[in-house]
Parts: sequence; structure tokens; C-alpha cells
Amino acid sequence: MGGTLPLAEYLLARLKQLNIGAIHGVPGDYNLTLLDYVEPAGLLWVGSVNELNAGYATDGYARIKGMGALITTFGVGELSAINAIAGAFAERAAVVHIVGVPPRHMTATRANIHHTLGDGDYDHFRSMAAHVTVAQANLSDPRTVPQQIDATLLQCLIHSRPVYIQVPVDVVSVHVDATALSNPLVVPDMIFGTGQRRGVQEIADRIHSAKRPVILIDGETAGLGITDLVAQLVNVTQWPTFTLGTSNGLVDATLPHVYGIYHGAYASQRHQDMMAEADLVLHFGPHLSSTNTSGFTAIPERSKTISFTHGEVQVGDKEIHRDLPARVALSELLHGLEDKKLAGIATKEETNDGVEEAVAAERPDLSSFRDVSLNDAIRQKELWRLLATFLRPGDIVMAETGTAAYGARHMSLPKNARLLVPMTWLSIGYMLPASQGVALAQRELSKTKPTSTESDSGRTILVIGDGSFQLTVQELATISHHRLNVVIIVLNNQGYTIERCIHNKEASYNDITAWRNLLAPRFFGAEEDVYTASARTYQDLERVLRDEQLSHGQTLRMVEVFLDRFDAPSGPLQDMINKQA
Amino acid sequence: MGGTLPLAEYLLARLKQLNIGAIHGVPGDYNLTLLDYVEPAGLLWVGSVNELNAGYATDGYARIKGMGALITTFGVGELSAINAIAGAFAERAAVVHIVGVPPRHMTATRANIHHTLGDGDYDHFRSMAAHVTVAQANLSDPRTVPQQIDATLLQCLIHSRPVYIQVPVDVVSVHVDATALSNPLVVPDMIFGTGQRRGVQEIADRIHSAKRPVILIDGETAGLGITDLVAQLVNVTQWPTFTLGTSNGLVDATLPHVYGIYHGAYASQRHQDMMAEADLVLHFGPHLSSTNTSGFTAIPERSKTISFTHGEVQVGDKEIHRDLPARVALSELLHGLEDKKLAGIATKEETNDGVEEAVAAERPDLSSFRDVSLNDAIRQKELWRLLATFLRPGDIVMAETGTAAYGARHMSLPKNARLLVPMTWLSIGYMLPASQGVALAQRELSKTKPTSTESDSGRTILVIGDGSFQLTVQELATISHHRLNVVIIVLNNQGYTIERCIHNKEASYNDITAWRNLLAPRFFGAEEDVYTASARTYQDLERVLRDEQLSHGQTLRMVEVFLDRFDAPSGPLQDMINKQA
Repeated sequence: MGGTLPLAEYLLARLKQLNIGAIHGVPGDYNLTLLDYVEPAGLLWVGSVNELNAGYATDGYARIKGMGALITTFGVGELSAINAIAGAFAERAAVVHIVGVPPRHMTATRANIHHTLGDGDYDHFRSMAAHVTVAQANLSDPRTVPQQIDATLLQCLIHSRPVYIQVPVDVVSVHVDATALSNPLVVPDMIFGTGQRRGVQEIADRIHSAKRPVILIDGETAGLGITDLVAQLVNVTQWPTFTLGTSNGLVDATLPHVYGIYHGAYASQRHQDMMAEADLVLHFGPHLSSTNTSGFTAIPERSKTISFTHGEVQVGDKEIHRDLPARVALSELLHGLEDKKLAGIATKEETNDGVEEAVAAERPDLSSFRDVSLNDAIRQKELWRLLATFLRPGDIVMAETGTAAYGARHMSLPKNARLLVPMTWLSIGYMLPASQGVALAQRELSKTKPTSTESDSGRTILVIGDGSFQLTVQELATISHHRLNVVIIVLNNQGYTIERCIHNKEASYNDITAWRNLLAPRFFGAEEDVYTASARTYQDLERVLRDEQLSHGQTLRMVEVFLDRFDAPSGPLQDMINKQA
Repeated sequence: MGGTLPLAEYLLARLKQLNIGAIHGVPGDYNLTLLDYVEPAGLLWVGSVNELNAGYATDGYARIKGMGALITTFGVGELSAINAIAGAFAERAAVVHIVGVPPRHMTATRANIHHTLGDGDYDHFRSMAAHVTVAQANLSDPRTVPQQIDATLLQCLIHSRPVYIQVPVDVVSVHVDATALSNPLVVPDMIFGTGQRRGVQEIADRIHSAKRPVILIDGETAGLGITDLVAQLVNVTQWPTFTLGTSNGLVDATLPHVYGIYHGAYASQRHQDMMAEADLVLHFGPHLSSTNTSGFTAIPERSKTISFTHGEVQVGDKEIHRDLPARVALSELLHGLEDKKLAGIATKEETNDGVEEAVAAERPDLSSFRDVSLNDAIRQKELWRLLATFLRPGDIVMAETGTAAYGARHMSLPKNARLLVPMTWLSIGYMLPASQGVALAQRELSKTKPTSTESDSGRTILVIGDGSFQLTVQELATISHHRLNVVIIVLNNQGYTIERCIHNKEASYNDITAWRNLLAPRFFGAEEDVYTASARTYQDLERVLRDEQLSHGQTLRMVEVFLDRFDAPSGPLQDMINKQA
């Protein structure tokens, strides 16, 4: 490419090279000139309704496309988004947070201007962002701008975590060296030395000697960029495979040796036995928070586990092979695996008292409306398996923190469907804006794929409690405006039922103000004929789920499901609320 | 009082002693047990729709009542609110931010639990808060809890800026020493020494020798807690008095020697001459940001100015008398002033070529609907003076960042009415939730006052652009739920007109999604008969403003005023957009 071009063009070109097709954000006077460059760069500008929503949407987009970018303004804008950035850090979404900041002459003179704290210190917000981003850059010297941008984006790629870039408004159009743009930005190869070779050999040996192996696909697998390689491994080995709630759908859940979600202490006895009796667990993308591991009970025993992470592989409880990222290790392993040495289903059957059905994966069956009394009020115990009948290949199901995230783990997924549930950050209000970003990413991806057999594949289905719905509800306007294919299912249980389960279920602070939820599309400017429906009984639910307008619509649709305020899905929440009674 | 009581009771009792009647916030599992204590302590719990809104509402409440308190949960909750806390810091609102944090055994073991970043570091969020609060405390040792609470709240009182208190969920009910509660928490007296006496004498000398003095009441005057004393001074001296936009209504604007807002370079020639010719400016609560001072042009010349701030008084350009807070200095001065030595209006007339009308304050007149063509579309040039006819004594008018904040400065205020406009932080979305807090504070105050002659005094009137309206719109549900007396006037100009004035007025990124704004009350659960109306012409506007339901309603009312997308109030914004044309 060579030559020079304006800073903004360099930055946006890099983002585009990294597969970003849309940028989220909110205008503010320190970023307006930067925004002038967005659409000319061939990027879609998605003006969100506020910065927190924009941050959440970017996170959702990044989880599907691999990376996303957000533009806010100094102080007021960036701080509104910082909770979303923290969530992307905690759960590894590659979000590039670009902040338009005051011109350099004001920073230099410590001028007392708007969007500052009035103390002349322009570095507060960068310092705050440093807690929740893996790299920060202030693009104030045009000579170093290309290198700063590249170095910062590289950290974002490597860690799949947010980075922070300040663009002073007076350098947006200043020319910078464009030479580096000729080469796409890629993570440099890890140079293979003795350590790495020894590591891969050790892992291969453990794999080849395993008699009762299990594969456990965990929540950071997508962030590691190894979903494809793990799928290969699952196919090659045919080994029993589990996911956690946060990784459901990263592997074809309809394969016979894929057992679905491992719930730790809440798993079936058979699943618990399989884990207990395993002599090797290949654990990809471990994310060991209490909420992701059924209160630490789904973590496999360290001594028999090989963990694959961003930077290293740990074998058992002794050795950590550093500088051996999951992707590197797994590529090498897949080349070197010797089929005949692998413990197989056949082998396992022979050594395992020959009960054939023991090798078929046990999955929650889809429920049928024939199994319930149609006039009964809907209960969470049945709801999730009934909702699962609505799913199609290609869907992305999102279940918000609250009873939804717990309940959704009871849903069987069709092939190529994916479930997104919160792992650790658990910020209520996240999922609705995130569904905007997810649906946008889904639409972009569908354009690059060969035409699907489904005329209307790629739905984003958001299930969200009425409490969480309220926090960020206005992002529904953006979903509608961009005509995204999103089904929103609001669970109306009059408040924060998950909190009722945790403590003092009758406390009024867990109630919310009662809204007319189904008016949302009209209020937020959607066309008058947007599909909305409500369901109180199973009969209602069946009618709604079978409605063509709901299932095959192409834009926003919305369903309100009424539930009892104390009703929780089977499992830990139901146990907790029962103990209070 | 003596004895002991649970930590939560101590903390809440202190807040109540400090005149706090309501606490805002959002429940989360690390604060639920703390919330159990709120209503038993005799405090109203106001569950906001999200934490940013709760923070903004608390800021509004604090600006009227002197102090407010907010409860959020660790990580997700507090970070959502941090932009509001930063605003309270920048503009001096005394907000106590209480955060429910994980139990001490989890902190001690660096457990990987939800609402953390997963790195075992529990101190990230306190570190971030330290940038925007004047004191922080973690209440983890019951022996020091009373002292920590008192010390932290004292900083909040002294600086009129936010403080941050972490309450681990496992110490909420632990007993602490209650002895200190017997004494109300007050700012200790400043011990008067030679320095202070010399300072007060110097100020008094300057006051007594002034020939052409001016009083300038600035935006931090309310935060200094000297509004009453400044009013006394204005009455005693009868000196020409100006406010800035941010302090309008802190002094009786109907007094003949009160000249209204000083607009610096945008002020009338006469006002500019008065400032230029003054030989002394008493400047109370200076807040010298560009946005508060018409781009630094309303700042009086240093050498003839005496500035009264939180900790000190600066006389001219040489001497700063430290440890002489505004309130202390002003109390002393008011005792020692000698009327006969004061430059008076009479004196001024004699020395000022005897033109009598020169001493009558020049204020924008109220406009009348007789002055406009009733069928014309409403324009900002006339709008503000017409809206001013709607105001009554006791009203609090709030004008959001955007064209509203500029336009509202053209409104004449009746006696005892107050105008709140943003000073420096200028975070769009602030004003709607803040109006909830303001209205709540107003209602609390009205209960302690002798009955007013107006049957329905104390309206909160929010004027807000349609862009800003969208960011935090759902707080309207809380306004409605608590039956607060709020009139919301939405200026529909299809987006961010203030940004259009600043740069590239045609840019589509300044457009917003088109909502059906007047559906808001219904969507957010208000009663079906809530008053809503729209106005496109002056005739519409006159009809609406004269409607009894609007003017004398007691709960939420809403008006949508349609304006051209490029229409801005006379002054800097209009100049900017004209320059683009």
C-alpha cells in the first residue's frame, strides 16, 4: 500500500482487515470528526441508544465475529460503557474501545473543559480503563500511530479481551505512514523449541495411553479461536464429550458421543460417574468461576486433566508448558495423533462390561405439548424443553442472567445452533443489546456463506426476564431500525426472581414497576405490524410457537410469557427458594 | 445512644441524621441483606431501573437536599453507575455510593466468583472509584466501622462530592459500637487564628472601599452550603448581582438589583460594561469550566475579584487565605459589615451621571403569545420565553445538555424558582433520572415547610431533547410509580442538534431512531389517563401550556414539542450552525 493516509483511515482499515463490518457507538463532540470516516471506510455505523448498550452490543458482535469495535466520547461516553468493557474482559470478548478525546492543546494546557473532572488531569479515564483492558494507547504522535494501533490490536487478538485507544480530535485527519497496512495483522507464529516439542509429546503420550478419556469444552474455547480444531478432535477421537453451559453449541450437540452440558454436582449420576471414572480430561478454554462450574463442582480433577488456555497447556497437577497456546498445541496434536492408539468407543465397550447403551449420549429429550395439560399455567419446569422445540439449525439462543440462564441449560440444541449464557460477569441488562450485536454479526456471516436451505436461517432468540429487560430496553429501537432477525421472549415474573431465590423471597425491593411490555416495539418506533403475543398457558405457548409470523419472521418479534414470581427452573435456584419456604 | 447495633443500622441511621429520606439503587446478590435494613430504618427505598439511572437520580436528589445515597452491587452495579458518580464529582453533588461486596472469606481466598474479573483481585473497582470520589472505605473490621463511616461521610459533607463505601455482605448484621450516633455528624469548626482574622479583615476592607462592586453567584454556591448567606449579603448590600446559568434561582431573580445570568462575551453590552467597570467582584462558588463561563469569557478579572471556595478565599491575584472556607468567611463578614461604608445604589447613581434607569436590572421580559404568529411552527428563538410564562414560584426547571441547556438560559425565573443546567460533565441522559431525584427531594422538603399558598407548588419541569431522552428513558417508570410531580417537555428535533451545530450538521450519525415518544407513559406502566400532548405551532403550545391538567397535575405529564432539526437557540449554538451554512 505504502504512502500515507489520515490516522482515522489507517485505524478503520485495520479493523476492516480484522473482519469487522460494523462499528457501534454514540456520537459526542470529541469523536464527531472520527465518525466522518466510518461509512466511507465501508463500515456500517450502528448508533446505539446509549454507550452501555453500545458496549454490550459490541461484545455480542465480537463473540460471533471474533472482534468488535466501539466508539465513544471522552469521560461521559467511555465511563457509561465501562461496565460492558469489564464484562468483555471477564468473559473474553475482543472489543476495541476507541475513545474520541480532547485536542492536544487542551490536554497540554490542562484546560478546564467539559467532560473532564475539572482538575486538569486528562488521564483519569485511561487509568480506569487499564483495569479492564489488556492494552491502552493514546494516539498523540503521528510518527508512532501505526505501530501503536497494530500493537494494541494484536493484544486484543491474542487475549480475546478489550483494548482501549484514545484518538485526540485534532489528529483524526493527520497523515500517518500507511506502509504496514499492506500486511494483514496476524498473531506471530510461536517459535517451536525444545520446550514446546516436549510439551506436545507429553500431551500426545497422555492421549495415547488414556483408557477412559473425556473431552470437556469450556466457555473460553470460542475466545481461544479453536472451535474448529476441537470439533476435529471430537470427530477423530469419537470420545465422550461434554460442554459447560457457556459452550453449548460449540460442538455438534446431535452427535451420539456428545453428552451435552456437564452440571457438576447437579449432573445426572451417570455423567458424574463418567467424570469420576475418567483417566484423562482434555479441558479446552477452562473458565473456572463458580457460576460457570456449578459452584466449582464441574471442575475436573487436576491430576488427570490437560488444560488448554491462551498461553499455555497444563498437564496434570505438575507441569505447565508455557508459550504453548491452545491453538498451536492442538494443531500439532491433530497432525500427530495415531488413530489406532486412541481409546475408542469400541475399546471402551469391551473394557466396560459390554453394555451397549452406555455409549449413547444421554440428552434431555425435547418435550412435547402432548406431555402437558394445555390449560395449565406455564411453569419453568416444562418451559425450557418446550421452547427447545422452536429451535432450528443456525439459531443463536441467548439467555440472560436470571432464571433464563439457568433454565436454558435444559434446552437441547439442534445442530449448528448455539447457546449464549453469561459466564461470570452476570451483568443484568447485558443480553438485550448483545442480541443486537449478535444478530448483526449473524447477518454479516450469512452473507459470506453459501446459501442455506432454510429461507430464513440465522435467528437470534433472546430469552430474558422482565427485570433484566428493563435495564437496557431501548436497544430494541436499534434492533428494529436495522431490521435484525431477533425474537425476544420476555419472562414476566414481576421482578428479580433469581434474587428472590437467593435471599428473602418476599422482599419488595425485588419487585419492579409493572410495564406494558408488548407496547415496546410500537413505542420504540417499529412498524405497526410487528408481531407480538403473550402466553399464560401451555395452550397459548403452543399457539404462539407454531405461528409462522413468529418462527419465520425476518425482523423483530416479541413474546411475553407469564410465570409465577416464585417459579424457578429445576436445579440450584429451585433448591434455594424451596429452602426458604 | 450507646450500646451496639448492626453495621447496617449504624450506616443508615447516620444517613438519616444527615437529612437523607430516600435511598436509590438496584438490588444485587451482594447487597440484598443490606437492603433488608433500608425501610425498617425509616428510609424510602427507590428501586431505579438501572444503576446509571439510580446514580443520576441520587445526584439530583443530593443537589436539592444536600446529600443523597445510592446502593449498588459489586462490579456490575457500581461500574454501571460510575459515570453518574464522576458527574457528581465534577459538579459537586454529595453522593454516598454504598456498594454491597462479596463476603470476606471470598476476598481473602481470592475466589473466582461472579461479578469479578476472574483474576482474584477484589480491589479493581475501589481503585477505579478512587478517581471520582473524595474518600473510600471498606467496612471489613467491625471495630473501626463507626469511625470509617463517620470519616467518609464527613469528607462527603465538606467537599460536597461523592464518597465510596464497600459493605461486605457478611458484615451487614455484625454489631458495632453505637456510641458515636448520639452526636450528629457535623463539620468541625475551623479554629480561628491570625491568618483567618487577617483574611476576613482584608476582605472587609476591600468591600468597604469598593465603589463599583458586583456580586457574582456561581455554580458551586449550592454545594458550598452558602446560598442563605449569599442571599443575606445581596439584601444587605443591594449591590448589582449576576448569576451564571448554573446558579440561576439561587438568588431571588425578581429583585431589582439582580440582573440574571451573566453570559460573558454573549452578554448585553451593558452587562459587559458593568463587569468591565466593576472595581470589585465577589465571586461565590466559582466553577471555571469553559461550558460554565461562556468559553472562559464570563470569568471576572482576577485582580479585582474575591473568590469564595470550599477551603479558601482568594483576594485579587496575590493572596490566597487558606483554611478559610466560604461559609466561615461569609458568616464573619456579615457580622462585621458596616452599612454606611458600603457602596450603594444611591452612591453609584451620584457618581454615574445620574441616569436613574441605569440601576434597574435589565432582564429578558416574559414573552407573550400575542407577540408571535400562532400558526407558525415553533422556533427556539421564541420557545424559551414562552415556556417561561408557564413557570410558578417553587418550580425547579431542569434543562438537559443540548439545545435545552442553552435555551433555558433565556428564561426569566419567578421568585423561588430554580434552574438546573449542566455545568461541566454534560453527560446526556443525566437529566431525566435526575428529575426523579429532584422531584422526590422537592416532595420531601415540601412536607417540612409551612403550607404554601399554591395548592400544588413544587413542580419539577424537565426540558430535554429527543436524543438525550432516549439514553435513560426508562426512569420515567420510577417517576410514574412514585407519583412524582414531573412535567417532561421533549424537544423533538430528530436527533442530536447540539452536535449538528458543532460539526457536519448533515451527518447521519447525529440522527436517532424515531420513537413514538408520547407512548412512553403507557409503555412504562403509568395510568391510562396520564396527560400527554404535542405541539407543532405556537397555537398548539399556548393551548397545551394553559391546560389545567398540565399546569396543576400532581403526577407525571408529558409534552412533545416539534422543532426543526437545525433550529438552535440564539447565541453560540446558532452562531456555530450558521457558520456551517
